[in-house]
Amino acid sequence: MKILFIQTGGTIDKNYPKTNAGYAFEIDEPAVSRVLEKSFIGFEYEVVSLFRKDSLDVNDQDRSVLKAFLESTEHDKIIISHGSDTMPETASFVGKIPGKTIVFTGAYLPERFKESDADFNIGVAVGSVNVLTEGTFIAMNGKLMSPESCFKDAVSGLFETKEI
Amino acid sequence: MKILFIQTGGTIDKNYPKTNAGYAFEIDEPAVSRVLEKSFIGFEYEVVSLFRKDSLDVNDQDRSVLKAFLESTEHDKIIISHGSDTMPETASFVGKIPGKTIVFTGAYLPERFKESDADFNIGVAVGSVNVLTEGTFIAMNGKLMSPESCFKDAVSGLFETKEI
Amino acid sequence: MKILFIQTGGTIDKNYPKTNAGYAFEIDEPAVSRVLEKSFIGFEYEVVSLFRKDSLDVNDQDRSVLKAFLESTEHDKIIISHGSDTMPETASFVGKIPGKTIVFTGAYLPERFKESDADFNIGVAVGSVNVLTEGTFIAMNGKLMSPESCFKDAVSGLFETKEI
Amino acid sequence: MKILFIQTGGTIDKNYPKTNAGYAFEIDEPAVSRVLEKSFIGFEYEVVSLFRKDSLDVNDQDRSVLKAFLESTEHDKIIISHGSDTMPETASFVGKIPGKTIVFTGAYLPERFKESDADFNIGVAVGSVNVLTEGTFIAMNGKLMSPESCFKDAVSGLFETKEI
Repeated sequence: MKILFIQTGGTIDKNYPKTNAGYAFEIDEPAVSRVLEKSFIGFEYEVVSLFRKDSLDVNDQDRSVLKAFLESTEHDKIIISHGSDTMPETASFVGKIPGKTIVFTGAYLPERFKESDADFNIGVAVGSVNVLTEGTFIAMNGKLMSPESCFKDAVSGLFETKEI
Repeated sequence: MKILFIQTGGTIDKNYPKTNAGYAFEIDEPAVSRVLEKSFIGFEYEVVSLFRKDSLDVNDQDRSVLKAFLESTEHDKIIISHGSDTMPETASFVGKIPGKTIVFTGAYLPERFKESDADFNIGVAVGSVNVLTEGTFIAMNGKLMSPESCFKDAVSGLFETKEI
Repeated sequence: MKILFIQTGGTIDKNYPKTNAGYAFEIDEPAVSRVLEKSFIGFEYEVVSLFRKDSLDVNDQDRSVLKAFLESTEHDKIIISHGSDTMPETASFVGKIPGKTIVFTGAYLPERFKESDADFNIGVAVGSVNVLTEGTFIAMNGKLMSPESCFKDAVSGLFETKEI
Repeated sequence: MKILFIQTGGTIDKNYPKTNAGYAFEIDEPAVSRVLEKSFIGFEYEVVSLFRKDSLDVNDQDRSVLKAFLESTEHDKIIISHGSDTMPETASFVGKIPGKTIVFTGAYLPERFKESDADFNIGVAVGSVNVLTEGTFIAMNGKLMSPESCFKDAVSGLFETKEI
């Protein structure tokens, strides 16, 4: 098994600014690399960075770049780290790509934080991508969800499944 | 979705001894509770403790207790934290239980350690149990494996699949 | 021995925003409380919050409030957590207060970060306040310095002693 | 200012065993190096390892080696990491050495643990060694104590000053 990890930005990769610029975060190297390096990984993987944006700043041009990349890559098991606020939009935009298993994940607290949920969330994505066959999914809050049927609840911040 | 987590011991739950007894660890409260509490979980779960043993001390009587518990519980999605040294033996002993999805996991470093792989491994187990239907599996090193076809390599410490 | 800890803000207390406001930090509860609670403390202490500002936003009115508070408090051993950028200015403004030992400290990375220097810096302040008799000092980079004779180097970010 | 740090062992440096030997810790590289490397240190320092023992195993031969080393070294500001159980005995054995400021410290939880007090305690030792002139001291629980007048309370585990 080989997994490709793609960085697009979001909370998971936020770091304290190296310059003394006061209040603003910056989006730094992919957290997924640090998590995998300490986790006694037994599969092959690569980590690539496509862009580094807060997900509120991700636009349809970015999504087109991501989709084109996913369609052209030879990899068939892919985990994408992405900000949570527009994760369903991006995952829906990408949609299903024949022959590929794609899982989006992210975090509520940056991986640099002691109390971060990043390690767990990346684990959930890895566990599901082991088993899933084809399709594009969201892995947040320990749940696997279809992009079209879930949304981030504005009050709780948790991902919920739409009532039909 | 509801997941039952079962503690049996192992490295993942080892803590520094409260008494000043020098070199020995003790197996403490289930690490899985601490990981889930900080990870913005969106599913229901329970955590129960069956026993607290280093996996080299787990014997067939313990395994019978575990198997009987698994057969009698109403839960159908179950994650078992267990020491890695005899994890394949215990998982093979338990075997497949009709209607139940059972995933064993553990850690190379206690969850109490800064560099622990516990959060990631619990995540892998949760991600896979979302998707798997029936059967008993091992989730270590980011891989899902059948208990009968894997072993812990004595040199690398990693779980490998048996050549046939 | 009893030590009074005063929060004024700065990097040490920055936390990820609870609202999903994108890039901005917020200054949260005093980090010093969390550090002391886990450090098996054998002295009495109190923690009070005077204000919560990035040190670039601390003005002379804030400094007057702080100085008045220091002059009126009954405590004689006082540690002040403060942003590093204007720490020498605030400590010089406060100056020496008869009968009181005052130590300013802070951090380069928030205490919430895994790699934070907060615990160490608070320790340095506590160690020095045990021994110092009277005066107002800065404890950064593991060094005790006089506010008038030190400055934060714009390039290295470290506190240096002025050449005379 | 230059500080010499000497490792003698104890809880602060305990690590999970690299071999899969079950319950036993091992005493690993000096934790003080990791703490200093992340703490934006502004003074010169060296770290040397004299021995790696749980402090219950430190005997008078070890103490003689330590004392001889302290008497012969050119350094005059010295911090010694040591297990807490016999820290007063070792510090009393060493006694005062003319021209030298010596501070013993340690930890209740290994530096490898998330909740460790190691960073704080090393900070206390560094802060006090900045200010102290001559003598041999114990820095534990955020307090500076004379080796002859303190003891580790068997119940609380904290260092207390003897009633006279």
